[in-house]
Amino acid sequence: MKVLVLNCGSSSIKYKLFDTQTKDILAQGGIEKIGLKGSFLKFTLPSGEKVILEKDIPEHTVGIEFILETLSGAKYGCIKSLDEIEAVGHRVVHGGEKFNQSVLIDKEVKAKIIECIDIAPLHNPANLKGIDAVEKILPKVPQVAVFDTAFHQTMPKHAYMYALPYEMYEKYGIRRYGFHGTSHRYVSRRACEFLGVPYENQRIITCHIGNGGSITAIKDGKSIDTSMGLTPVEGLMMGTRCGDVDAGALSFIMEKENLDAHGLSTLVNKKSGVMGISGVSSDMREIEAAIAQGNERAKLALQMYDYRIAKYIGAYTAVLGGVDIIVFTGGVGENQTVTRATVCRQLEFMGVKIDEELNSTIHGKEADLSAPDSKVKVVVIPTDEEYMIASDTQAILSNR
Amino acid sequence: MKVLVLNCGSSSIKYKLFDTQTKDILAQGGIEKIGLKGSFLKFTLPSGEKVILEKDIPEHTVGIEFILETLSGAKYGCIKSLDEIEAVGHRVVHGGEKFNQSVLIDKEVKAKIIECIDIAPLHNPANLKGIDAVEKILPKVPQVAVFDTAFHQTMPKHAYMYALPYEMYEKYGIRRYGFHGTSHRYVSRRACEFLGVPYENQRIITCHIGNGGSITAIKDGKSIDTSMGLTPVEGLMMGTRCGDVDAGALSFIMEKENLDAHGLSTLVNKKSGVMGISGVSSDMREIEAAIAQGNERAKLALQMYDYRIAKYIGAYTAVLGGVDIIVFTGGVGENQTVTRATVCRQLEFMGVKIDEELNSTIHGKEADLSAPDSKVKVVVIPTDEEYMIASDTQAILSNR
Repeated sequence: MKVLVLNCGSSSIKYKLFDTQTKDILAQGGIEKIGLKGSFLKFTLPSGEKVILEKDIPEHTVGIEFILETLSGAKYGCIKSLDEIEAVGHRVVHGGEKFNQSVLIDKEVKAKIIECIDIAPLHNPANLKGIDAVEKILPKVPQVAVFDTAFHQTMPKHAYMYALPYEMYEKYGIRRYGFHGTSHRYVSRRACEFLGVPYENQRIITCHIGNGGSITAIKDGKSIDTSMGLTPVEGLMMGTRCGDVDAGALSFIMEKENLDAHGLSTLVNKKSGVMGISGVSSDMREIEAAIAQGNERAKLALQMYDYRIAKYIGAYTAVLGGVDIIVFTGGVGENQTVTRATVCRQLEFMGVKIDEELNSTIHGKEADLSAPDSKVKVVVIPTDEEYMIASDTQAILSNR
Repeated sequence: MKVLVLNCGSSSIKYKLFDTQTKDILAQGGIEKIGLKGSFLKFTLPSGEKVILEKDIPEHTVGIEFILETLSGAKYGCIKSLDEIEAVGHRVVHGGEKFNQSVLIDKEVKAKIIECIDIAPLHNPANLKGIDAVEKILPKVPQVAVFDTAFHQTMPKHAYMYALPYEMYEKYGIRRYGFHGTSHRYVSRRACEFLGVPYENQRIITCHIGNGGSITAIKDGKSIDTSMGLTPVEGLMMGTRCGDVDAGALSFIMEKENLDAHGLSTLVNKKSGVMGISGVSSDMREIEAAIAQGNERAKLALQMYDYRIAKYIGAYTAVLGGVDIIVFTGGVGENQTVTRATVCRQLEFMGVKIDEELNSTIHGKEADLSAPDSKVKVVVIPTDEEYMIASDTQAILSNR
């Protein structure tokens, strides 16, 4: 089955066309700067060559039309006709408490996604634009929504509630939802396949760490706690997000700097994290380069980044009552060998032991890093959220 | 040596008079409602009888004069003359980065405590009022300041920094300081004495849990991380404080409820925690009573309270690279047998095993709860911050 996967942001659209039988990626690329000056479509040909096509793209429907034209066009196309696209799978960021799994999109589903806009004002409207555009252009093609939050809906209430007045939950749905659910689900399942162990009775900690980052505790195939919260600000230190911070420090800063709620949100989302501490960059590769040149604040940023990962793994080991498998994924998890080594050294006391020589050679590919006598399996599994979306879409349509 | 220990709040003064040689408490009590209608002095006689003396107490100097009169008076006194008081020890809440241990108070010390008012606007001014009052009434008596934050000054930078813009630290000193330091120091030392092990090479997690609460990781006698932060809001769920919460959830609430920084501070300090979730009370005894009557939100509050303690112990076990001793103290830690049992059961995977029958009998007294085959010692140590203040005061004056 040929499935088009779309990830629509407010000014961007990423796409991948999968053949779900062969798991092949037939085409991939993205549009940027929708509604802005200099909008363009960028994609990679099977040869590896990158193509950029500039075009005025005022809104999402035009963007998706452009993608579809290119996919089926004579010059860069990989399909003969749009009829070959049997389904479209969408990444939808926030499913609130309304969705605990992927679903076929109909009127009712769209209404519920709209209801979740309140808690995801930046993301869900863009996701909906993508759904509406496909509906208009390919009215007969079924669409599936795959939610970032759905996998975490199995968390128990004592894990997802904040100790804020209970009315905040009742009135506004304020609670921990978690994100990166599609990634945590994919890498935890894939880790078990890779290791040849059953998914259903493992205690797994998945570390999706990169520019954004979250850690999830998975017991018997179910998420029981995760580090991101109502929003993606909570938890680990990230590229520009602060992660965990004293609420009292925030009201203190607001008074000192004369910030309102919006100013606070900008501070913790865009000016903090690795960028805020290092003053150098939000990108860990640049941080490593700065450290090599002796930059003390870059060094501090990396120490904080690694330290918080180890703390969460410790906390979630307690939550799970022990851990069988630790999975590293995401840009940093797949590539930054030093962070993996530092974190695992901190966990030696609990029987975590990796082959450091092997670790230093693993970049962006599946690997079992565990030393033979490690009590805990430590693996690298490159994440593939788009494949998971295609796979969910195919499964839902096959079971209709 | 007779040492008077004072803990001055904005409208209250608590006192204890110690004989540091015998460790006897010669007198103890407190003044409440300073500057308000109905102010009074309340104290307990050696017989156990409680006495309340009403009196108009407009400010701290009058209050301390009243305490001293009573201490040396014919009717309720325990000393013949004020000359018997050889020193006064003060609890001072915030020492910022200026104090890493208790100090003899002089002009320079007072100036530094004043400099810390910015980060402790509610507490340090009241502490200073007490110091000034004693200076006026007993000008020749030496005074010592014992800081809540001092014990935590050994934390490494990667543990005490928030991932906020670095300028927030440089401009305002925004970082984790931690509180309850005198308690964490006392109970960790006392636990080692009690167990007959050397303090200097243990990995200890001290759980000071009560209406306020914090957990500290202590390695080789030094605090290396603690759950409270710039302010006492961070970390565990508390009576009315929210503890850890998504920063993104706070800006969300501020917009919904139209709150400013002050409104946010009130929300997270006074309307949250056990009270906010249960809607019943901030007091764990009343929560247990409500649970017995089937109150679901009270049950949730207790589950969240216990869960977060277990998470912190897990995180700090990773920070310490393993744990030798877990100490319970504070109102809940000393008395709520169910919370101790629940938390320890969650930690069984790491070799924590308590004698649950013994545990159920221990209220407010020192005890080793560990089962014989427990890999980790679990002890209850009633905290005694006032004794620690008297002891520091005596030590500093003896070494002059």
